[in-house]
Amino acid sequence: MTYCVGLMLNEGLVLLSDSRTNAGVDNIASYRKTYLFEKPGERAIAILTAGSLSVTQTVIAKLQEAIDDPDATGETSIMEAGSMLAVAEIVGNMLSSVSADIQAKMNRMQQSASASMIVAGQRKGGTQRMFLIYPEGNFIEATADTPFIQIGEHKYGKPILDRVITPETSIADGRLAVLLSMDSTLRSNLSVGMPLDLTIIRAGACQISEKSRIDERDPEFMALSEDWSTALRDSFARLRDKRKA
Amino acid sequence: MTYCVGLMLNEGLVLLSDSRTNAGVDNIASYRKTYLFEKPGERAIAILTAGSLSVTQTVIAKLQEAIDDPDATGETSIMEAGSMLAVAEIVGNMLSSVSADIQAKMNRMQQSASASMIVAGQRKGGTQRMFLIYPEGNFIEATADTPFIQIGEHKYGKPILDRVITPETSIADGRLAVLLSMDSTLRSNLSVGMPLDLTIIRAGACQISEKSRIDERDPEFMALSEDWSTALRDSFARLRDKRKA
Repeated sequence: MTYCVGLMLNEGLVLLSDSRTNAGVDNIASYRKTYLFEKPGERAIAILTAGSLSVTQTVIAKLQEAIDDPDATGETSIMEAGSMLAVAEIVGNMLSSVSADIQAKMNRMQQSASASMIVAGQRKGGTQRMFLIYPEGNFIEATADTPFIQIGEHKYGKPILDRVITPETSIADGRLAVLLSMDSTLRSNLSVGMPLDLTIIRAGACQISEKSRIDERDPEFMALSEDWSTALRDSFARLRDKRKA
Repeated sequence: MTYCVGLMLNEGLVLLSDSRTNAGVDNIASYRKTYLFEKPGERAIAILTAGSLSVTQTVIAKLQEAIDDPDATGETSIMEAGSMLAVAEIVGNMLSSVSADIQAKMNRMQQSASASMIVAGQRKGGTQRMFLIYPEGNFIEATADTPFIQIGEHKYGKPILDRVITPETSIADGRLAVLLSMDSTLRSNLSVGMPLDLTIIRAGACQISEKSRIDERDPEFMALSEDWSTALRDSFARLRDKRKA
């Protein structure tokens, strides 16, 4: 499995993905699941992927092929598309078409392969937007009411987001919240694993503002994880003591 | 869906279930999912159920029928069974047989119905034991390494249990932990709902030590839920401030 989460805050987009891929529990590998497309100052797009690697890699490769095509148009290339909505449509159509091809092969073996994606970004002249692309290729968009999108193993890390994230949350707080959300998921589910890819696209910048890879030995993440465990245990102890008193 | 959780602590068994049942989102009802069987001082058994109500109600009704049968034996009645392992076997076999009957009917409509259960208790002369009964009727047992079992919507409420529960946890702390685990689940998933049924069976007592129903207006649960939200937000703020400093 996978865990990817994206926040759409007034200050900007905060995106985090894990990198574990497994075909059964005895075949585990690490693959980047965040793909960035950028023309600084003009547009910045992040695509986070969950699901069958055979689907997601092919979709990304074909999106890249379409970008590199000298005959690329706004209908084919996400780097030419006239709006983030058009970007989501291109990605959705590509996902739908690749899934259908692969599924036709899988059917013969009574197996299935599907994928979902978070597409987030901004182009000059437009606002920042974030979409959840379903395996079928249709999509929904993040709004002020629901400023975060999760794909993959989303349940373990949802309670902290439900309690902390609003559009007014700062990027610094959003960064902390997605890391804590990931930490809860990592602790409770083996199929999600380090390293992590963190991307920040500040509102209006139309470029990748921060891109970092966080591995097992990252001192900041280790301290955060430890501090959060301690904080949860302390909170629990305080609740208990308050009830005893 | 459903969320049920059971802890097997050195001090005793702590069990909690929600009561929401739905057939589609437009047909929601409330059903007790905790069933207690007791002969005080001799044996106390709790069965918590998740899954298709048509399966779980029939299993419980047939278990009760077998208990009431004047020809009941240790092979048919969970109140006569010679050990908690034998109780788990009777429940597992009944679940397997009822599931098969109902599934035969469902197949015609291309639908499926299944259920899983937590069976926990103690009989005089034996130790307390807790089992997870799978939809197929086979089962696994809680141990010191894994002193809790969850069925239904288990993911939201797992992080707090992973961090807090060990066999040495007191019953009072266990009670608090399962309520917090349920609170996280209630907040993040609509298909889990109040009221809650809490059961405590102290080790060695061989009787139900505490049985309570907690509804939406329960002042203790409301305060707990509020305090926990505040504690999480405060912990988050402290982590952030520590990082700013």
